[in-house]
Amino acid sequence: MESVDHFELTQEFLERFGEAIATQDSTFIQESLDGVNPADITSLLHEFTSEESKYVLDLLPVGETAEIINDLDQDLRVKFLQHYSPSEISRFVGELDSDDGADIINELPIKIREEVIEGIENEQKAANVLELLRYDEDCAGGLMAKELIKANVNWSIGKTIEEIRRQAENVQKVYAVYVVDDLDRLVGRVSLKKIVMAEDHVKVSSIYDDEVISVETFQEEEEVASIMQKYDLEALPVVNRQGRLMGRITIDDIVDVITELAEQDRQLMSGISEDVEEDDSIWMLTRARLPWLVVGMLGGLLGALFMETFEQNITLTLTFFIPLIMATGGNVGIQSSSLVVQSLANKSAFTKTTYTRLWKVFWVAILNGLLLAAMVFLGVQFLMESDLKLAFIVASSLLCVVLLASFMGTATPLVLDKFDINPALASGPFITTANDLLGLAVYFGVAHLLFSL
Amino acid sequence: MESVDHFELTQEFLERFGEAIATQDSTFIQESLDGVNPADITSLLHEFTSEESKYVLDLLPVGETAEIINDLDQDLRVKFLQHYSPSEISRFVGELDSDDGADIINELPIKIREEVIEGIENEQKAANVLELLRYDEDCAGGLMAKELIKANVNWSIGKTIEEIRRQAENVQKVYAVYVVDDLDRLVGRVSLKKIVMAEDHVKVSSIYDDEVISVETFQEEEEVASIMQKYDLEALPVVNRQGRLMGRITIDDIVDVITELAEQDRQLMSGISEDVEEDDSIWMLTRARLPWLVVGMLGGLLGALFMETFEQNITLTLTFFIPLIMATGGNVGIQSSSLVVQSLANKSAFTKTTYTRLWKVFWVAILNGLLLAAMVFLGVQFLMESDLKLAFIVASSLLCVVLLASFMGTATPLVLDKFDINPALASGPFITTANDLLGLAVYFGVAHLLFSL
Repeated sequence: MESVDHFELTQEFLERFGEAIATQDSTFIQESLDGVNPADITSLLHEFTSEESKYVLDLLPVGETAEIINDLDQDLRVKFLQHYSPSEISRFVGELDSDDGADIINELPIKIREEVIEGIENEQKAANVLELLRYDEDCAGGLMAKELIKANVNWSIGKTIEEIRRQAENVQKVYAVYVVDDLDRLVGRVSLKKIVMAEDHVKVSSIYDDEVISVETFQEEEEVASIMQKYDLEALPVVNRQGRLMGRITIDDIVDVITELAEQDRQLMSGISEDVEEDDSIWMLTRARLPWLVVGMLGGLLGALFMETFEQNITLTLTFFIPLIMATGGNVGIQSSSLVVQSLANKSAFTKTTYTRLWKVFWVAILNGLLLAAMVFLGVQFLMESDLKLAFIVASSLLCVVLLASFMGTATPLVLDKFDINPALASGPFITTANDLLGLAVYFGVAHLLFSL
Repeated sequence: MESVDHFELTQEFLERFGEAIATQDSTFIQESLDGVNPADITSLLHEFTSEESKYVLDLLPVGETAEIINDLDQDLRVKFLQHYSPSEISRFVGELDSDDGADIINELPIKIREEVIEGIENEQKAANVLELLRYDEDCAGGLMAKELIKANVNWSIGKTIEEIRRQAENVQKVYAVYVVDDLDRLVGRVSLKKIVMAEDHVKVSSIYDDEVISVETFQEEEEVASIMQKYDLEALPVVNRQGRLMGRITIDDIVDVITELAEQDRQLMSGISEDVEEDDSIWMLTRARLPWLVVGMLGGLLGALFMETFEQNITLTLTFFIPLIMATGGNVGIQSSSLVVQSLANKSAFTKTTYTRLWKVFWVAILNGLLLAAMVFLGVQFLMESDLKLAFIVASSLLCVVLLASFMGTATPLVLDKFDINPALASGPFITTANDLLGLAVYFGVAHLLFSL
């Protein structure tokens, strides 16, 4: 039994392996990687340079190399494939499922794409890859693979099994056989379990399940992910507008989509503007982070300008509470927008109306705001031994800020969503900065009003 | 063909359906739900009260009702099951896979659990559920189902198919048959595809794949999720310490785990302390949000106290830049911690050493900090026509704050992770508040130093 702990990357092994690369000890490399899962080899190669990795991969069977290249992170793969000639890349693509092949070709420089496609030996594969390149990467058509097994509804199970045998090499994972009519339109599915249990002479038509869930090629990846999740599917057939079976999407691709979308949300929430990872270059990391920092900085300068303008209305004591007002406003805003983003993500068929939503947010804000204001009132009065008036100003503007930040935090993601912008942006620095400025204005506005009473 | 668009919840249908419930028009309800996927019925019932939903469910076959109850959100299900007697709940559990059954029983009041288990008619199912209740919900044992098909390595394919037939009712989705030895230890797997293609007399031993990835019952759900994701598995066998096959985990459960973990991270990042959703009660929402707001507020009061203490070192003009300093520190801190959290989540076998990481963060911070400081220096000088000294103070303390916030943002999630606390907490309000206070201290400290020069 190979358990996952079987292939453990120890520091010793890593050093020994590095030595083997340096001394071109191909026997050691081949022996130690024999039977190791390609995903583990991918992790291992992350520790070495492109040149070193290429030396290792050239020692492996082409099928394994193709899988490992397919496993790499996109930016790493782009760099890595520069070490290979178009004809070598054609061989890798030929070994992969059509969707993975198309993804790789999409990442290549345009000038060599045609050469790579032409170099694919298996003509059917080349045609499949070419077809998939037509679709947008973020829709069902871009996610699907052409590899699937289909049976005509009038076939017998025996003939279907023959078809499975014929296709066995091309289709790695078979969950079900899709059933089509004479016009190649999807009419149902038969699970492999049923096929195993049926006699050869039985007709597909008498055992297939005609309630098959499918998507059309143009549907967005978010939608595909939520359908597969809702109905607990491990594979989902894709049809065109005429209902013809075009391909199938498997759950492993959708798991990657879900993870990616969650990561995108996190990056938006934390104000990182590109898809970067910790091990990207210092320059890339700076470029991804600086724009949002500049937004925040400009907001801060605007705040300073604002305070300077109203300088005569501001006392030093009043400024002591700027951190309190800003922090509370920021926290309330992020909490509110995060709840909205979450419920937009899990949207059920009927979402609450905007009105109901705002009404409820208002009451939660009133409740939180009153409780906080009461605590702050006591805190300012006793802790700081200040006068009643100051405590009242701070507490009442805090209440206003909580209400305002709740409203902004709720409305912004809803508006963004209406315009088809990712609502997670609402928890990011742009909105936080806007909230900060509003908070300041409210604070000094309330103070001005109450002082002049 | 039933495409997903087939059952669309229109406002008209919803109203008509509500009427049918009110007038107890069971014929309409049964006819309109006939052939509808249980997941769609679940969405539909979200629009009605528990009593109304119960009326609808009582009209459906028990198997469908069980699936729908299993589909409900946990808190909704807990409330909903209060309307059913223990013996009714036993019937539902009897219809579900053992893992789903165990989850439901885990949510029941302790005093009725035993009665529900005893009421399960199928003794094998009752025993399976009872066994699963022993495991912690967040480990492989708590995720696995007992339903799987296994074959002895010495069996023929014919006998294996017989076993599949025998088990067909219990095991809904068969991806592969697990191969065990005489001591019930997992030794490999045979895909259904291979079984379909093999002749009946062939021995399992001659076609099975002995490189099967498995996990042990005690492994954590995060680990299970990342293994299934890494190796693109749709099902994963679970073994005990002796290597005996105990159950299997299917990808649909892992998709839910991944989504849940991402949601938890988002809630931690936005300072929401319980697992709440937008449609929870006003009171629950307040309770989930208030604690972090209080933390932020206390931080704000501390800041005020701090400023009061150093009042004589602070000029009004200096306070104009508090928003700038705080916002930048906050943004930098969140960006840094978010990158670390992300790379902790995708951890490869070898993670960078803490030292390398901090070194790189330092350089990114220097670069970002210097660029920002330069812009702020110019901004303060020209926009606000202030003296050189003020611009210099603001710019240099901004640089310090960026460096400090980067360090804090990087170190905090690493430390939290070391103590097995979810590192996403580092992007939440607690750390942000700490950063705010540090930022203030640095700002006025630098100002004090430079003024006294």
